[in-house]
Amino acid sequence: MQPWELTATAAAAKLQDGSLTAEALTRSCLDRIAAQEPAVKAWIFLDPVAAIAKAREVDKAAIKGCLHGLPIGVKDMIDTADMPTTHNSPIYQGLQQGRDAACVGIARAEGAVILGKTDTVEFAAAGRRALTRNPHDLTRTPGGSSSGSAAAVAAGMVPLAFGTQTGGSTIRPGSFCGIYAMKPTHGVVNSEGAKRYSHTLDTIGWYGRAPSDLRLLAEAFRLFGLDVPLGKTVKDLRIGLLRGPNWHLAAPESQAALLLAGKRLADAGVVVEEVTLPAPFDGITEAQRIVLMGEGRGAFLAEYVSAFGKLHADFRSRVENESGITAAMMAGAYDLAGDCRRSFDAIASGYDAVLTPAAPGEAPVGRQDTGNAVFNSMWTLLHVPCIGIPCTEGPNGLPVGVQIIGQRFGDAALLDVAALVAPVIDPKLPG
Amino acid sequence: MQPWELTATAAAAKLQDGSLTAEALTRSCLDRIAAQEPAVKAWIFLDPVAAIAKAREVDKAAIKGCLHGLPIGVKDMIDTADMPTTHNSPIYQGLQQGRDAACVGIARAEGAVILGKTDTVEFAAAGRRALTRNPHDLTRTPGGSSSGSAAAVAAGMVPLAFGTQTGGSTIRPGSFCGIYAMKPTHGVVNSEGAKRYSHTLDTIGWYGRAPSDLRLLAEAFRLFGLDVPLGKTVKDLRIGLLRGPNWHLAAPESQAALLLAGKRLADAGVVVEEVTLPAPFDGITEAQRIVLMGEGRGAFLAEYVSAFGKLHADFRSRVENESGITAAMMAGAYDLAGDCRRSFDAIASGYDAVLTPAAPGEAPVGRQDTGNAVFNSMWTLLHVPCIGIPCTEGPNGLPVGVQIIGQRFGDAALLDVAALVAPVIDPKLPG
Repeated sequence: MQPWELTATAAAAKLQDGSLTAEALTRSCLDRIAAQEPAVKAWIFLDPVAAIAKAREVDKAAIKGCLHGLPIGVKDMIDTADMPTTHNSPIYQGLQQGRDAACVGIARAEGAVILGKTDTVEFAAAGRRALTRNPHDLTRTPGGSSSGSAAAVAAGMVPLAFGTQTGGSTIRPGSFCGIYAMKPTHGVVNSEGAKRYSHTLDTIGWYGRAPSDLRLLAEAFRLFGLDVPLGKTVKDLRIGLLRGPNWHLAAPESQAALLLAGKRLADAGVVVEEVTLPAPFDGITEAQRIVLMGEGRGAFLAEYVSAFGKLHADFRSRVENESGITAAMMAGAYDLAGDCRRSFDAIASGYDAVLTPAAPGEAPVGRQDTGNAVFNSMWTLLHVPCIGIPCTEGPNGLPVGVQIIGQRFGDAALLDVAALVAPVIDPKLPG
Repeated sequence: MQPWELTATAAAAKLQDGSLTAEALTRSCLDRIAAQEPAVKAWIFLDPVAAIAKAREVDKAAIKGCLHGLPIGVKDMIDTADMPTTHNSPIYQGLQQGRDAACVGIARAEGAVILGKTDTVEFAAAGRRALTRNPHDLTRTPGGSSSGSAAAVAAGMVPLAFGTQTGGSTIRPGSFCGIYAMKPTHGVVNSEGAKRYSHTLDTIGWYGRAPSDLRLLAEAFRLFGLDVPLGKTVKDLRIGLLRGPNWHLAAPESQAALLLAGKRLADAGVVVEEVTLPAPFDGITEAQRIVLMGEGRGAFLAEYVSAFGKLHADFRSRVENESGITAAMMAGAYDLAGDCRRSFDAIASGYDAVLTPAAPGEAPVGRQDTGNAVFNSMWTLLHVPCIGIPCTEGPNGLPVGVQIIGQRFGDAALLDVAALVAPVIDPKLPG
């Protein structure tokens, strides 16, 4: 087994006990990238010489942080002090910030090797797509906007990578690429230094190849409650199975994945109960669109007034408020979101987690359509933690996942639930 | 009259008609700074040679933006591509970002001369105070955290300046320094590139010496509704006079200022009616503290793990959660804020604006105590627009202001109300 084949968790154990060095793991990842990158195109910036130098520096560290020696890919709309940050925008080609984004600085301080920058949908929002292809089928998208991060982890190029989610940009590519994905509770991970689209929605997320990989980054970010174990076994769990208000938009394979995951859990002794949401939730997908478009007005104004000619029409239309968002619509959307956050917490408190689709189906063909965020955007607006879990394959052999959802700030408990249910839901889970 | 003595509005008119150049105004501001700065200490970074070069560049512009030729001071926790950004932190001495903060980029694209960086409380939050003194009394604070920006505008060093407000960091220094201040609706001005403390609370604000000065920046940021004039005269106005849940914390001069402002308005023909808030608002000051401390846990984690030795104990305590904020407290505070936002909008809809204290009293003596934010923090959490208006003087001859509050997204209407009530409330208003 090559080092690049290890999950982050398995690699971390070896890095901590000294049986693997950061340099060896980084070199192995770079070898894998050299082999896969011409086809997958996951990276916008990668400097192998600098990466090895950083890894050797980490190998000299007197104290090992919780991410010691682990290479991490960073979505290229998250700032890095030692690499350019282009946002996949012609405006920011060559831009180099003086300071790491908060999430990058924290990972670096915990001993991670910041390996390179991954391709992204422009500003993680709209406009230009990444060049990245789905490692499971090069004719298909890995999803977006965290295209390069999801594909890089799925292709074994790097054990961990940062994405972001404003609509469905972390969980959906995770499903399309057959990997584990986490969108934590909104605001618990400082998103400073990631390009702003919507302050209400933008959330730093991350990818790994096992549920325990996701926990490594949760520990680096010191999420609430990590010191309080759930203390349950699979047979103690109660899971709410939620088709949700957009069920009719799920392809057969996505509907099948949810029901299959529910059946696998029930067969393993979990209490699985169908949940429905009250009527106000029918408006929450539209509320997310209003918040996104309304906050997008201000988000791209700086580029609009300073670099109009290089700003994609998608962003000009946001600033010009082509979708006609009004102040009253904004206040109404915020208020509905507030109501539904409290209401969902109450519903979710009856379960260890809520199980629901992660994406509309298999990854679409081509590069332009990165998939519909409709199974994610409501959860982003509700601020609740989401963990994506691979489940099955669709009619074309592409991965199809599901996701589990917790109460706001219930990230730690949700990670414990993921560790229990993932081996049941995901037949391909390593080890 | 020297150019530095002009309000931003008066200077803008001359800059637009060509009777004043950006260079002449910038030179005049630099002269004023040279005379006042040794005593006031408003600036962390100022390069007069570069400022004049920038002004001359603006004088060559083919198209005049809405801030054409106006020098602007920038609080030194807001990024500037052409100047260092220190956050008044030993960690970031010499840091230079590659990109302007959104608000700076927009102002620059609209023709503003970014004059220099103003001193601030460390990270606009806690820790080290600015060296800045109150121009009205050098033994006193100008308030914080936007200390240098408020003092610079009050001392005539610059006609406009950016601050931020997370608790009361824009409106309170405005009151202490006897100038006009605006905290817009949360989120309508992209705060990207300003150091994060609390994503729910951090709001870009600004200072001027007349209500119309505040409107210049509102136009640059294209706030909702600026094209729909209020269409009222003073005698058409209905103002709600609100003592508020913290009235007992107002010094006699601040209580007197509110009642005096109300009397002046009533004497001018405004319908002034006392308003009270329902019981849930009694918890909103504490909810703001919980949100601030809870979100502060993650806000300074990057500095905590990467530069612990240089991080002030105030920020270490946030990361270590010394105040014992729990997930349940956070969710409860967010939910109460959501309820009160909707409730306040309903109350405010009965008035053109709500008039309430801007600060506890006169500016405190010394540099360490920058004043209590208790008359501001609830409005910051409620996300509503606030405009600070000078009103009277306290027992020591220091300025004491009031503020008017609007509904969420009612920034444009509130600016129109400010233009009507400021000449009534503020006997010193120029012109």
